[in-house]
Amino acid sequence: SRSFFLIAGPCVVENEALLHTVARSVQDTCRRLDIPYVFKASYRKANRTRLDSFTGIGDENGLRLLGKIKETYGLPVTTDIHTAAEAATAAEYADILQIPAFLCRQTDLLTAAADTGRVVNVKKGQFVSGPAMKFAVDKIKQQGNSKVILTERGTTFGYQDLVVDYRNIPWMQAHGAPVVMDCTHSLQQPNQPGGVTGGNPQLIGTLAKAAIATGAEGIFIETHPDPSKALSDGANMLQLDLLAPLLEELVKIRRAMTA
Amino acid sequence: SRSFFLIAGPCVVENEALLHTVARSVQDTCRRLDIPYVFKASYRKANRTRLDSFTGIGDENGLRLLGKIKETYGLPVTTDIHTAAEAATAAEYADILQIPAFLCRQTDLLTAAADTGRVVNVKKGQFVSGPAMKFAVDKIKQQGNSKVILTERGTTFGYQDLVVDYRNIPWMQAHGAPVVMDCTHSLQQPNQPGGVTGGNPQLIGTLAKAAIATGAEGIFIETHPDPSKALSDGANMLQLDLLAPLLEELVKIRRAMTA
Amino acid sequence: SRSFFLIAGPCVVENEALLHTVARSVQDTCRRLDIPYVFKASYRKANRTRLDSFTGIGDENGLRLLGKIKETYGLPVTTDIHTAAEAATAAEYADILQIPAFLCRQTDLLTAAADTGRVVNVKKGQFVSGPAMKFAVDKIKQQGNSKVILTERGTTFGYQDLVVDYRNIPWMQAHGAPVVMDCTHSLQQPNQPGGVTGGNPQLIGTLAKAAIATGAEGIFIETHPDPSKALSDGANMLQLDLLAPLLEELVKIRRAMTA
Amino acid sequence: SRSFFLIAGPCVVENEALLHTVARSVQDTCRRLDIPYVFKASYRKANRTRLDSFTGIGDENGLRLLGKIKETYGLPVTTDIHTAAEAATAAEYADILQIPAFLCRQTDLLTAAADTGRVVNVKKGQFVSGPAMKFAVDKIKQQGNSKVILTERGTTFGYQDLVVDYRNIPWMQAHGAPVVMDCTHSLQQPNQPGGVTGGNPQLIGTLAKAAIATGAEGIFIETHPDPSKALSDGANMLQLDLLAPLLEELVKIRRAMTA
Repeated sequence: SRSFFLIAGPCVVENEALLHTVARSVQDTCRRLDIPYVFKASYRKANRTRLDSFTGIGDENGLRLLGKIKETYGLPVTTDIHTAAEAATAAEYADILQIPAFLCRQTDLLTAAADTGRVVNVKKGQFVSGPAMKFAVDKIKQQGNSKVILTERGTTFGYQDLVVDYRNIPWMQAHGAPVVMDCTHSLQQPNQPGGVTGGNPQLIGTLAKAAIATGAEGIFIETHPDPSKALSDGANMLQLDLLAPLLEELVKIRRAMTA
Repeated sequence: SRSFFLIAGPCVVENEALLHTVARSVQDTCRRLDIPYVFKASYRKANRTRLDSFTGIGDENGLRLLGKIKETYGLPVTTDIHTAAEAATAAEYADILQIPAFLCRQTDLLTAAADTGRVVNVKKGQFVSGPAMKFAVDKIKQQGNSKVILTERGTTFGYQDLVVDYRNIPWMQAHGAPVVMDCTHSLQQPNQPGGVTGGNPQLIGTLAKAAIATGAEGIFIETHPDPSKALSDGANMLQLDLLAPLLEELVKIRRAMTA
Repeated sequence: SRSFFLIAGPCVVENEALLHTVARSVQDTCRRLDIPYVFKASYRKANRTRLDSFTGIGDENGLRLLGKIKETYGLPVTTDIHTAAEAATAAEYADILQIPAFLCRQTDLLTAAADTGRVVNVKKGQFVSGPAMKFAVDKIKQQGNSKVILTERGTTFGYQDLVVDYRNIPWMQAHGAPVVMDCTHSLQQPNQPGGVTGGNPQLIGTLAKAAIATGAEGIFIETHPDPSKALSDGANMLQLDLLAPLLEELVKIRRAMTA
Repeated sequence: SRSFFLIAGPCVVENEALLHTVARSVQDTCRRLDIPYVFKASYRKANRTRLDSFTGIGDENGLRLLGKIKETYGLPVTTDIHTAAEAATAAEYADILQIPAFLCRQTDLLTAAADTGRVVNVKKGQFVSGPAMKFAVDKIKQQGNSKVILTERGTTFGYQDLVVDYRNIPWMQAHGAPVVMDCTHSLQQPNQPGGVTGGNPQLIGTLAKAAIATGAEGIFIETHPDPSKALSDGANMLQLDLLAPLLEELVKIRRAMTA
């Protein structure tokens, strides 16, 4: 039976203990349910608040912790990169390099990621259609790297809302790439007066079930033992102990479809 | 086991033979799959092209044919109404009165439909959010009629496209009404230069599966033995012999979810 | 020199004194500035809250007061209609029949309005493009009535906002109709939780100036001596004593353009 | 009298002769009309097609030509940058550094641009509201650089269209920055099947006039002696000999407003 895969983790590398808590818990659930699992954490957030330069110890530490999770649990790991210069270093640790949605049109970034030979996961820009993601796929394949994943994460729908268009799942699969549904960032409520993105975590299950039913190959969910204390994106993260029941529902749907 | 229900039929009452062909075929499939079935056909199209006045023989004939299907097959039937004046007459034949999306804010129409005592199925306006459909439900319930259904049919997304927002399914269920996904009209491509609404029939299955997975109580699909010859909305109708395989997939998903 | 014309008044017929206050004040300003003026008030609001049937005394009274303004001040008047049945009666009093935006696709309503021989002002639906308003114009002209005005009033932009697309001004003028900018309803914030449409009255001037600069033939502004006490749409009405300074600015722009 | 300023030039540095043709012609017109003029050309296009790395001779040549225009005509010049690493080099030649719309949330880029001490012109992202551009302004001002310009260039409106929301002009002015209307890129039609962005050049005047009437401090127009032969963005460029008549109209409007 062909399961979907899961990309999950806390939003950012907050501290080592958090990474272990999440990795261990999600790995246990995924083993039980026979779901391939990729551990995710960002080691920096370039489009959110100011941070020190890439070569700083913060970045190195973040990547090293990601590498430690990979070794300790034998899990593939993924992180996002923001400039071409970061690609090679991040690729030493990460199995999948994720391109942020705002940057999905930056040719230099896409080709630098492609050149590492790692899997490249391009998030669909909030301003891009599924069919137009063909051009991102082409830029990576033209570097000789055919390991591309595309991720749906919602489209601009007025200033303060995003909408997930499920037509994008078959449309992006037509480019020959597996498609992931990002159930966390698709629920963002951008452009809020306070500068903090709001959210609707109770709708995570709705987005995930629709994605599985429409044939998405992967699900992306940020999770935290206590989202109210998360340092980033807490508004949309799934509480860690709610992940297993949701995955059980998703597995039922996918098994019924492939039976 | 709790199945979803199906509202299906040709878009308009073209001729009697067509109604029988569709009703018989869909009824057979629904019996086999244990899906409650409501036959649908419009007897007029007020918002599309000019037609003669309501009392004309065209309208009466349309309604009479709908009544004949109801009697012959023992099926509940539904049709849409466009003015308060049509409600009582249509209610003599139809079990469910459907309120068109453009008209979901017309108080007189909603209350006239409510006053017939029939089930009222209000389609969400392309300019209305799921939460705001509460006010349509309230207008009907305040007439003492609590038999309300709400139908998602897409939201304005630029001038020439509609997008289905699956958050509307739980949001509209919160108003205490079963929710139907209209897989036909949600795929319209409005405001085309020629005045004819385009479409994407190959995406009908995508919309329907996502709706079943997110808990919709009903599915609405227009179907025709030969959509290329249909007199209205052919661009988005499902070919009749493709309906059974789609329903089989939907039944699998729903059964897996309720098992 | 060719001025723009102004359609202005309170949103609804609240009481006779209000109509006189507004008509007198706006007429004085328009005479001074050489702006053709059409007095506007709705005698009912079909798409907002429940009201008694058309033949009720409320409606008749509303229309009669409109007629009284017309006689007293020698002003053309306009009001909106919601069903074909209302057209003939409203046409006895009103020089311009206004078709609400939600109803701009209802063929019966458009043709009934056209048949009165009055000028028909069709508001662009929030879900319609400027180019597609050609079909509304055609429906009226095909009845032998070529006196059509088109009004821009914003387009659905996410659930809780409208956006004014100024491309619609030349696009709609291409249909051979003068175009009016509705500076009041374009600022609505629909689908608010409380069911009351919010607004941004401080932006009325921004919308009006852009319309004049892009060649709109008319400006529509709802005005009230004290918007905070208005019974409808107070959130977007212009305070009566702010109208004259705004019109002065608009006249300067238009005169510079036609000089 | 307070005129608006103009940022204009060909889209990219195609060859030296083109730069001279455009600079000379636009400078003549702007002197005659008393409009401050900033020459613009991109020396690379990071988000469009693959290009060699920054230190390549192509980039240096592009910047050198920009510098030559500046010297020859005594004009301030502007160009866009795409990574933090480009800021310092570009600042040697350009008086204004332009941040592309897709990158308006990239903190490292904004702060690197700010650190050069040059004027920073941030284009509003297609996914960002005018009020939320406050955060871009803050990131620059927090580096001790208060010379910020904001540019409106349209907002995502469905997949294949952009809409200009003129409310953004006063909303962005409220952040204490002059606001420019980009009349070229606001007319893009993104996500077209062929990967080439379409356009509507005949609407350039509509966008520009509305901007001047709503108080924009600047106008941005790409222009080319023969847009049909331009190497980039030809679909939306204004033919060079149509620029003077448009500017004359804009000057009339602005003078009328400030008289």
